[in-house]
Amino acid sequence: MSELRKDPVTGRWVIIATERRKRLSDFSLESVEMVSDASCPFCEGHEQMTPRELLAHRHGTSADSPGWTLRVVPNQFPVLRVEGTLDRQGDGMFDKMNGIGAHEVVIESPHHLDTLATMEEGRIEAVLWACRERVQDLKRDQRFRTIIVFKNHGAAAGASIAHSHSQVVALPIVPREVRDEVDGARVHFAAKERCVFCDIVRQEEADGRRLIAGNADMVALAPYASRFPFETWVLPRRHQSRFEDAPRHEVGSLARLLRDLLQRMNKALRVPPYNLLIRSAPVAEAVDDSYHWHVEIIPTLTKVTGFERATGLHLNPTAPEEAAEVLRGAALP
Amino acid sequence: MSELRKDPVTGRWVIIATERRKRLSDFSLESVEMVSDASCPFCEGHEQMTPRELLAHRHGTSADSPGWTLRVVPNQFPVLRVEGTLDRQGDGMFDKMNGIGAHEVVIESPHHLDTLATMEEGRIEAVLWACRERVQDLKRDQRFRTIIVFKNHGAAAGASIAHSHSQVVALPIVPREVRDEVDGARVHFAAKERCVFCDIVRQEEADGRRLIAGNADMVALAPYASRFPFETWVLPRRHQSRFEDAPRHEVGSLARLLRDLLQRMNKALRVPPYNLLIRSAPVAEAVDDSYHWHVEIIPTLTKVTGFERATGLHLNPTAPEEAAEVLRGAALP
Repeated sequence: MSELRKDPVTGRWVIIATERRKRLSDFSLESVEMVSDASCPFCEGHEQMTPRELLAHRHGTSADSPGWTLRVVPNQFPVLRVEGTLDRQGDGMFDKMNGIGAHEVVIESPHHLDTLATMEEGRIEAVLWACRERVQDLKRDQRFRTIIVFKNHGAAAGASIAHSHSQVVALPIVPREVRDEVDGARVHFAAKERCVFCDIVRQEEADGRRLIAGNADMVALAPYASRFPFETWVLPRRHQSRFEDAPRHEVGSLARLLRDLLQRMNKALRVPPYNLLIRSAPVAEAVDDSYHWHVEIIPTLTKVTGFERATGLHLNPTAPEEAAEVLRGAALP
Repeated sequence: MSELRKDPVTGRWVIIATERRKRLSDFSLESVEMVSDASCPFCEGHEQMTPRELLAHRHGTSADSPGWTLRVVPNQFPVLRVEGTLDRQGDGMFDKMNGIGAHEVVIESPHHLDTLATMEEGRIEAVLWACRERVQDLKRDQRFRTIIVFKNHGAAAGASIAHSHSQVVALPIVPREVRDEVDGARVHFAAKERCVFCDIVRQEEADGRRLIAGNADMVALAPYASRFPFETWVLPRRHQSRFEDAPRHEVGSLARLLRDLLQRMNKALRVPPYNLLIRSAPVAEAVDDSYHWHVEIIPTLTKVTGFERATGLHLNPTAPEEAAEVLRGAALP
């Protein structure tokens, strides 16, 4: 029989529909194949195809020229723009504001065929550290309430450019997903004087069925109320509310574990498209005790259906216990 | 500049990212092509491949045999099952319950190649009426709090069987999307003593920019804070909270308008996959004054990205004013 499970942070129910359990071949899997593209704007030598760089890792070369290992540039087609005012206004019963914010792209490598799973650990750490720096810089702008860091890998996961990159978006609002998590964690803390994420790590380590991997600073697990097949969370063991305050050694440990997890997914799930999200406290809110930053990796294996649109309930055909077992067994030698 | 718009029912923001405006060729459009399939369990003559029918429109033939125009059967791989008890329980800090509910399939035609857009109006009315009957029957079970009716058309919209069908699911909870809508409508009513959906219809009819089509009982529009390109809502002009209480002439008017809208979409968007949802008040709640049943049609033109997963904010590259203009112009002669 399928099970309804409640996410302990947001209180949201998911359906673990094990009767509809799928073999890997049943998923609408679109393996990501990296193919050279002479017109890619993110490749070394094509620096003039992007807006001017905001940050780069270079060895003595000048800005917006070749000779770099990482670049951060404004998005050419930004979701939100830095210039202007919010200009909140009504239109009869409707409300709107201008799309003020920031939208930056972290180009993770000069080479078109690199991916996070194949890059060296130090390069992944550099990517994460560059994201951290950009968040630190953007949060000085008082208009921004939330800054998110995420990555789309593969067309099925929404990547419009194949070349490996992450994105940093600053928003003038606290959006719903962030609101739900932060408020849920606050309610848990108010009731128990404990962080809900610390409680999750403690229970999962004692239980073991949903653990995937870990190191001194970080633990990777399949969450109890996984919304998606093979959804994976990476949590720092030490309580801290903000990714952008993580010390160097934790960012290094995260890089090492991410590389390991992405390699396991490539092996077990045949190089799936995926989204990677860094969840951190909204910049303008004091939630240091209750919120706990973490990373989510969501392989794109299923389609959104009318059921999910109608209910907001996720229907997950793979139990997290099974996903964790598969990923535990997919360690590279 | 892009715009943040607030949904007047749920208070949820969406980003209308007109700077990222797409031509039809930019969408990852997977046109739905109906192809014969000798092994389809929903085709006439294959009645033994489904569980026994719960309801059928037949002309004198016996149950589960050929000679029908519509059949309703339990889903062979149900998300939720009728048998058993909820058995709510904890597992340390986690909460779960059994997947009790109902999951039925309305097979809309005996012929594999039929679609709602090509079927006769009377046949669409029969489909809607069968859904209405099934909701009326299921709501007698006191365990169910919400009954949803939806349709996935095309693989990209989550349809695992191509043969045209709708689904009815009864849930033991009020899921988040339904909760948000019902609560938002209640807040609006408490403040204004008016239904928010009635207010929307009134303002949109006066404004005109987002109207698509209509008839005596129903109006179709592109909602102000459309989450998806070409998202279309169909609202009854007369206030009523429940689809399952709609009188015959309104269901007929809905059938006529749905057929018109699906034909317009096929013409303007090259036979897109889509989800169709019937939104109705939760069965166990008294929201007769504030909630207003309606239909949503969402063509599958974009992918879910990390941005949407991280924020819950929808990023819509097509302004609803533009979508409405395109669909107004796509009327069949």
